[in-house]
Amino acid sequence: MGLWDIDKIEYVGREKGPEEGLAFHYFDADKVVAGKKMKDWLRFGVAWWHTFDQQLVDPFGDGTAQRPWYGKYSDPMDEALAKVDYAFEFFQKLGVDYFCFHDRDIAPEGDTLRETNANLQRVVDKIEENMKSTGVKLLWNTSSLFTNPRFVSGAATSPYADIYAYAAGQLKNSLDIAKQLGAENYVFWGGREGYENLWVTDMTREQEHMAKFFHMCVDYAKQIGLDAQFLIEPKAKEPTTFQYDFDAATTMNFLRTYGLENDFKLNLEGNHANLATHTYQHEIRTAVDAGMLGSLDANQGDKLIGWDLDEFPTDITETVSVMWEVLRAGQIGPHGGLNFDAKPRRTSFTWQDLFRSHIAGMDAFAAGLIVADKMHQDKYIENLWENRYASFSEGIGATVEDGTATLESLNDYAIDIPQKDLLAATKSDHLESVKATINNFMIDALANA
Amino acid sequence: MGLWDIDKIEYVGREKGPEEGLAFHYFDADKVVAGKKMKDWLRFGVAWWHTFDQQLVDPFGDGTAQRPWYGKYSDPMDEALAKVDYAFEFFQKLGVDYFCFHDRDIAPEGDTLRETNANLQRVVDKIEENMKSTGVKLLWNTSSLFTNPRFVSGAATSPYADIYAYAAGQLKNSLDIAKQLGAENYVFWGGREGYENLWVTDMTREQEHMAKFFHMCVDYAKQIGLDAQFLIEPKAKEPTTFQYDFDAATTMNFLRTYGLENDFKLNLEGNHANLATHTYQHEIRTAVDAGMLGSLDANQGDKLIGWDLDEFPTDITETVSVMWEVLRAGQIGPHGGLNFDAKPRRTSFTWQDLFRSHIAGMDAFAAGLIVADKMHQDKYIENLWENRYASFSEGIGATVEDGTATLESLNDYAIDIPQKDLLAATKSDHLESVKATINNFMIDALANA
Amino acid sequence: MGLWDIDKIEYVGREKGPEEGLAFHYFDADKVVAGKKMKDWLRFGVAWWHTFDQQLVDPFGDGTAQRPWYGKYSDPMDEALAKVDYAFEFFQKLGVDYFCFHDRDIAPEGDTLRETNANLQRVVDKIEENMKSTGVKLLWNTSSLFTNPRFVSGAATSPYADIYAYAAGQLKNSLDIAKQLGAENYVFWGGREGYENLWVTDMTREQEHMAKFFHMCVDYAKQIGLDAQFLIEPKAKEPTTFQYDFDAATTMNFLRTYGLENDFKLNLEGNHANLATHTYQHEIRTAVDAGMLGSLDANQGDKLIGWDLDEFPTDITETVSVMWEVLRAGQIGPHGGLNFDAKPRRTSFTWQDLFRSHIAGMDAFAAGLIVADKMHQDKYIENLWENRYASFSEGIGATVEDGTATLESLNDYAIDIPQKDLLAATKSDHLESVKATINNFMIDALANA
Amino acid sequence: MGLWDIDKIEYVGREKGPEEGLAFHYFDADKVVAGKKMKDWLRFGVAWWHTFDQQLVDPFGDGTAQRPWYGKYSDPMDEALAKVDYAFEFFQKLGVDYFCFHDRDIAPEGDTLRETNANLQRVVDKIEENMKSTGVKLLWNTSSLFTNPRFVSGAATSPYADIYAYAAGQLKNSLDIAKQLGAENYVFWGGREGYENLWVTDMTREQEHMAKFFHMCVDYAKQIGLDAQFLIEPKAKEPTTFQYDFDAATTMNFLRTYGLENDFKLNLEGNHANLATHTYQHEIRTAVDAGMLGSLDANQGDKLIGWDLDEFPTDITETVSVMWEVLRAGQIGPHGGLNFDAKPRRTSFTWQDLFRSHIAGMDAFAAGLIVADKMHQDKYIENLWENRYASFSEGIGATVEDGTATLESLNDYAIDIPQKDLLAATKSDHLESVKATINNFMIDALANA
Ligand SMILES: [Co+2]
Ligand SMILES: [Co+2]
Ligand SMILES: [Co+2]
Ligand SMILES: [Co+2]
Ligand SMILES: [Co+2]
Ligand SMILES: [Co+2]
Ligand SMILES: [Co+2]
Ligand SMILES: [Co+2]
Repeated sequence: MGLWDIDKIEYVGREKGPEEGLAFHYFDADKVVAGKKMKDWLRFGVAWWHTFDQQLVDPFGDGTAQRPWYGKYSDPMDEALAKVDYAFEFFQKLGVDYFCFHDRDIAPEGDTLRETNANLQRVVDKIEENMKSTGVKLLWNTSSLFTNPRFVSGAATSPYADIYAYAAGQLKNSLDIAKQLGAENYVFWGGREGYENLWVTDMTREQEHMAKFFHMCVDYAKQIGLDAQFLIEPKAKEPTTFQYDFDAATTMNFLRTYGLENDFKLNLEGNHANLATHTYQHEIRTAVDAGMLGSLDANQGDKLIGWDLDEFPTDITETVSVMWEVLRAGQIGPHGGLNFDAKPRRTSFTWQDLFRSHIAGMDAFAAGLIVADKMHQDKYIENLWENRYASFSEGIGATVEDGTATLESLNDYAIDIPQKDLLAATKSDHLESVKATINNFMIDALANA
Repeated sequence: MGLWDIDKIEYVGREKGPEEGLAFHYFDADKVVAGKKMKDWLRFGVAWWHTFDQQLVDPFGDGTAQRPWYGKYSDPMDEALAKVDYAFEFFQKLGVDYFCFHDRDIAPEGDTLRETNANLQRVVDKIEENMKSTGVKLLWNTSSLFTNPRFVSGAATSPYADIYAYAAGQLKNSLDIAKQLGAENYVFWGGREGYENLWVTDMTREQEHMAKFFHMCVDYAKQIGLDAQFLIEPKAKEPTTFQYDFDAATTMNFLRTYGLENDFKLNLEGNHANLATHTYQHEIRTAVDAGMLGSLDANQGDKLIGWDLDEFPTDITETVSVMWEVLRAGQIGPHGGLNFDAKPRRTSFTWQDLFRSHIAGMDAFAAGLIVADKMHQDKYIENLWENRYASFSEGIGATVEDGTATLESLNDYAIDIPQKDLLAATKSDHLESVKATINNFMIDALANA
Repeated sequence: MGLWDIDKIEYVGREKGPEEGLAFHYFDADKVVAGKKMKDWLRFGVAWWHTFDQQLVDPFGDGTAQRPWYGKYSDPMDEALAKVDYAFEFFQKLGVDYFCFHDRDIAPEGDTLRETNANLQRVVDKIEENMKSTGVKLLWNTSSLFTNPRFVSGAATSPYADIYAYAAGQLKNSLDIAKQLGAENYVFWGGREGYENLWVTDMTREQEHMAKFFHMCVDYAKQIGLDAQFLIEPKAKEPTTFQYDFDAATTMNFLRTYGLENDFKLNLEGNHANLATHTYQHEIRTAVDAGMLGSLDANQGDKLIGWDLDEFPTDITETVSVMWEVLRAGQIGPHGGLNFDAKPRRTSFTWQDLFRSHIAGMDAFAAGLIVADKMHQDKYIENLWENRYASFSEGIGATVEDGTATLESLNDYAIDIPQKDLLAATKSDHLESVKATINNFMIDALANA
Repeated sequence: MGLWDIDKIEYVGREKGPEEGLAFHYFDADKVVAGKKMKDWLRFGVAWWHTFDQQLVDPFGDGTAQRPWYGKYSDPMDEALAKVDYAFEFFQKLGVDYFCFHDRDIAPEGDTLRETNANLQRVVDKIEENMKSTGVKLLWNTSSLFTNPRFVSGAATSPYADIYAYAAGQLKNSLDIAKQLGAENYVFWGGREGYENLWVTDMTREQEHMAKFFHMCVDYAKQIGLDAQFLIEPKAKEPTTFQYDFDAATTMNFLRTYGLENDFKLNLEGNHANLATHTYQHEIRTAVDAGMLGSLDANQGDKLIGWDLDEFPTDITETVSVMWEVLRAGQIGPHGGLNFDAKPRRTSFTWQDLFRSHIAGMDAFAAGLIVADKMHQDKYIENLWENRYASFSEGIGATVEDGTATLESLNDYAIDIPQKDLLAATKSDHLESVKATINNFMIDALANA
């Protein structure tokens, strides 16, 4: 059977009953939906850190994960190299075309950056070979500038210049790897770029350092001819008390402040949206409308919980909203995909759960795509919007949109309208029916899937 | 057409397409599910306050509601009496068999309690006639001990004895009305029974007063032969900073402390669960397992919002969980039902939205019932539990359950078990597959509905 | 005694004991602190809406407020005019030099905007007279575009062009009033400029309308020679589910997107900061560092509560942080002040509580100023920052700040540094001592106040 | 200097200025306050896990802690034994009289419980010697039933009987240790006793197992003559989604349900209170009034953050509220103390920060004690309560408290009281003045400290 004692995961549809957990109910990779194959809309990626490194610890407990390579290797480099084989077989058996990794996920650190780079290069070369032989591609790579204690107070925002320099060197290597492996995107998640406490933090000096860091990365990418799309992944808080990339809008404000808005787009995560008290749909809408959506981290949070759970996405109502926004935009981003930045719960600890949980997530997004496609076909929301804002497409409203209106011209128009006419001009949005209608679309579209 | 310019709402199923907002897609009143008619499992009730009194104000805005009786009556008593006709026609056109009200919802106050009671009695008598002629029944009534400024610091927990006495008199009248109208339950929601600030509050003296108040109510009900089930409705906060009935567990602790646990059960609301950071399912499970579930306020919250929205329920995942717990319990409560303690959004302000929003809620619960029934038929969760706890049904586990185990006997059993055997004794819960399976049940059951 | 049966509030210091609630313990208006009189640093303003209009309702209760003019006037215009006298005597007895109002706070609406403007003008003229005779100044005025049901779906973001036009006309009048009364600032709070639900909202079309609205206001202000500073007041949510001006960063992103960043600054409120899960200090720091702080709404939230309480500020730890940021900036804003956007609790309902609560807030800010001044005199935080970031003031760090560094130059610097040297380069921030030190400053500075 | 290169921490008062971080400003151990020495009111305890084991990891970062014993020992048992010496010197240099530990904090596990017990016994014996030689006492010990992966699904609520048996064996040993070391209390914190997901959880079967577990512990303690007070420590969530001991009220409800209320009291933690959306004062008040306060975990949360930070307490407003409740109760609990269940931030990682952070916490509680004592001396809150509830001490109110009132007697009393008299019977609580007064007490009391 190979390294993982399991057959390739197949699409079985709804025939085998609801309890089948090791086959796809909705994800049918080559099925055409909205003019593209499912796999081309969804471009799923496996996250190396959660799937191959995560031991399922939590702040109060040691790892529970059971993985086939545990106990086989005493040398960390041997294990790192072996995991490449496990990873690529996993991708193929699961049927995903992409993966993502942090530099420190795939190889152990040495004492100096030079030694660490050497370790890393051996694994990268093996990954490159596997990519060629399997056709699996790199959705994005990134650099871990948060795990090592040297980054305790930040990396690009560290108050200590040596740490900043080290981070820059690490980034240089990471961009070289992106180039070598043909990464479609390159992600920055600033886990330590924020503050523990505002009293000890010169926020602006730190943000200026971070902006210079990003500019150096842009310059170096141009220099080496790297054409991966640069992405920033917002997160509100955790591990810091406040992260400089709190949410999509905060991150865009930062980018605009420092002239970086043309070089970066956003990688948005569901659970991170919730930590900023937003819905996932809100963050995606914000980015799409600003032309800033780059890629998605496909996971979900528990909205009654205050920390990052990185749950595999199973809330179909939410995946419908995500895929509706994606279909509206025409794509996730120029090179975007759905990276499962998600881990099984600590209580689902077998290696089979790695397959089970990815299947659950892939089916949830496939279902979301099917429903969103039906909604778009029927132009349900499109028509609703068109009717709702119709008064701005002609008459006095059109003078607002074409820029000819002034406070005075509008005042002249409005000053003698009686209250009853003003109230008559407002329309009910029948919001409860809208919500019920989306439920109806969900059931109808999936009943026929 | 009558007072409401609309026909009786019909069940049309999924045939008329997802956008039909004025017919039932899933609620088919007389259809038998799990051995009872849908309407007997669900026993929907209309909440008088939201449906007939709510003007759709919020803390920053005046009312937006448009209702057919607005502007027709200058005398509040005339309007109160007229609304009885509107209400009963609404119940019948919507097809619900129950309603609920606070005393102050249905008639205006006078200057003294005696005058207020007189106003109230006229409306109650008219309601009684309508109940007889239509067969619509009173799921529960309750007393508003929170709106009038006299209750600014509480009613049964007011620091001012005159206010306490007034509240007691008001309750006496309210229980008399429950008796007259054959209320199946009687609800206490202590909107002001909590504190604004702990420094100015003798919490225990207040709670003792509240306990005595409840005992007096129990005594009076016995005296007049009222057999309505008494219910307390927990809420965590809002309007107070802390409400004494924070959640199901807190309320049960109070009842046990004061010897009231045999006289009261709980009326649980979805949005109130969320304000305590619980799921609705959690609160229901807690009450069911303690034999304390009485009735349900059918609404939902926005889990990213910190105040009570009282949204009409449209989250089918949540209604599945609610109805699964209800089917497990065999009933909502001895006389329980699903009161829509819910209001349309301020932006869905037409009178038609009252129908639309109730339909959305009724369909969501009907869908939940259908899915939960399928899950119970397949014994999906039942089997999962049986397997999971099987080690307590025999061997050493059975000695725990039968009470013969001691720390010493268990120590003797465990002291030499090696770690690998302990780990082997723990099983993965395959949680992601469980969540996906419930989605699958949802689609499959509703596809066939 | 005048309209309010009370003497002018005096500064008594700490001599009369802690329970004195009708005198200032810390606010000594003419005392010089950090080179300016207390009253010039603090520039307190009374909010007309909370102090003279707020009846102390909440979503579950009618008004409890007791005010000296209640029951005296049957004609709303008479009451509106009378309240001007109450207001100016209140300002003088309390000893504040500024006030703030929404247009709709001070005069009742008519059936058309023209009629409403006429009502308003009568009151404005009386206010102008009182300003002249007393010397009390207008910190800012604003326009209520959220209370009337016509604004149910927004004003500058209403989907209905007639409503937008009405709002524009209302703004024109409001800016004329600002000009007439010499307002130092003009505030926009977009209570309805956001969404109830994303599905029914074309967010970008709405935001473009809002941007055009702001541009028209800027143009009109130039045209009439109004030199009040324009301010936007962010709020995360409530009454909407999401407000377009979520927080300082989101608002600045909007302003930059639409080329408005030079015409607007921010008016920041403590409770609104909390609703975005930020501290007040965070929001102020963000604005100060961007050169965008305009003015402050002096209130506080309850961080365990999810709605806007608008409590009078009494948390001295928080006022220390606010005034420290203000002293660092040198001013609140070019024309900024401390508007008490705060109301007494519903349980402190007497008219005396209006004085008591303002005194509590003024003392809390005066105490904050005294402590922050001591901290700045000792350069406690300044020195801490200088030490912390010292490595960027020379050597490799200086190449980052002067823009000569590249990923390659930094890589060359860092590539062979061993881990122990990297760890040695990071320093403890002794955070617990920092927090204790600020407590010590607080006690020491106030013990000598 | 010994193992820690530092002198004994001294009380220096406010003379050495606010920046002194290695001396006490307020904690003067032998100073008499409210009739007892400070050290007897406060009975501080050091938490072994945070102070000697915590490496300052977080979910995204490796440990940053620097400790004097790091790198000295290759054998875990050698390190465990050495840390006993470090611990007792730490207690003495800091000047605390108590400590607390989990069994797994102090010695490494073996492969079986028997082997683990043997490791543990060696360290316990060394601790016993040190206790005798230094006079430092054990405030409480506890058992870690959450860290090891065997407890992934609970210990006393594990679905797997072998794990339950193991936990029982571990508890037996832990109670034996409590007996040997003369523990004043014994604590149960059920980190895994809750659920990850309700669908896979038979909540009542689990709670019944937990109740039996507690009963076995009670029985065994009696059998071996252990007179430590049993305590349960509530926590709302984290690591689980819902912890069965959510808060004080929930825990008391559980205890009452299973007849355990006479054998257990509560150990309350500040940060845990916040995770349940309560203040620390609320939880303490709830327990004190029920006669259930046992001991306190002295830490604080960040109320804008959704996970457990276990910060050292520095919020004096909060310590005032805690110590006011303690002084009202006369003691923390029969054998209670203030265990610092607190860790320095990851950014304050030197060994000196262990002293600094404890000093910050001890000073904050000493300050709280001084202020609370002044408030009690002046009977400020006592008088306020007496006045507020005076109407229940005579007349109609007294009939409520003495049990002679009925709904009918109260109705007779109230039925003709006009509204104006009812409103006159309610009194303002002048809440803003109350909050300002507590600030005033704080400054005045500490200015004279
Ligand atoms: Co995440
Ligand atoms: Co992510
Ligand atoms: Co509610
Ligand atoms: Co309710
Ligand atoms: Co506010
Ligand atoms: Co404000
Ligand atoms: Co904790
Ligand atoms: Co604790």
